[in-house]
Amino acid sequence: MADLDHAQPWLAALKWDADGMIPAIAQTADGAVVMFAWMNRQSLMETVKGGYAVYWSRSRQRLWKKGEESGHEQKVLSIRTDCDGDVLLLAIEQIGGIACHTGRKSCFFNELHGEHWVAAEPVLKNPEDIYAK
Amino acid sequence: MADLDHAQPWLAALKWDADGMIPAIAQTADGAVVMFAWMNRQSLMETVKGGYAVYWSRSRQRLWKKGEESGHEQKVLSIRTDCDGDVLLLAIEQIGGIACHTGRKSCFFNELHGEHWVAAEPVLKNPEDIYAK
Repeated sequence: MADLDHAQPWLAALKWDADGMIPAIAQTADGAVVMFAWMNRQSLMETVKGGYAVYWSRSRQRLWKKGEESGHEQKVLSIRTDCDGDVLLLAIEQIGGIACHTGRKSCFFNELHGEHWVAAEPVLKNPEDIYAK
Repeated sequence: MADLDHAQPWLAALKWDADGMIPAIAQTADGAVVMFAWMNRQSLMETVKGGYAVYWSRSRQRLWKKGEESGHEQKVLSIRTDCDGDVLLLAIEQIGGIACHTGRKSCFFNELHGEHWVAAEPVLKNPEDIYAK
């Protein structure tokens, strides 16, 4: 990792957490926040190099190119970081218009109404059709 | 904490990390993602009860009502969580139009241009004037 930082000062300028991770927010051009995931240095490098979002899957402990199964890739238009350099904001074009594995445009579809979380966005595509082989 | 969960099932429905935290993204009505911070159960409770964003400051290890020093409070219009229930998205009205301690509208002002992070948003107010007593 130190090698990557040395070669890429813009990577070293970011504040990676104790696990070498940084949170990444994906936003489409219409302003919708569609996803939140984590990146390590390598995933950010591959994102920048390839132009499509590559995250680090903490559950699977491996690089995860968004859309690798669903086809719902995220073309990256720009990358920002915040004043502390410890969060990323990706401006993306969401291929297929669906970011969520539930078939919704955005993963942020559960809204707090009183004391209940209510699904406030429609399912655009049946997940079984998204992940069908 | 278990007491809070018991009294508030909607809190228990969220996935808090090992430190009892959840990431929170603040977004204004025009779509701008202006801030990212962390909440614990108590800060989310106070946010919901009071209608203004209260975060947990990991550096100061205490509840932090956004704007308590700057006056730049965040009126919360709605709260969403994602498909995993482990991230929050707050729709807010940003009092003063400035979320960042640098005097910018958004904390996400550094954009990656080639191999350099470039400040891509103007300073709207001198920080010394924001935090002057």
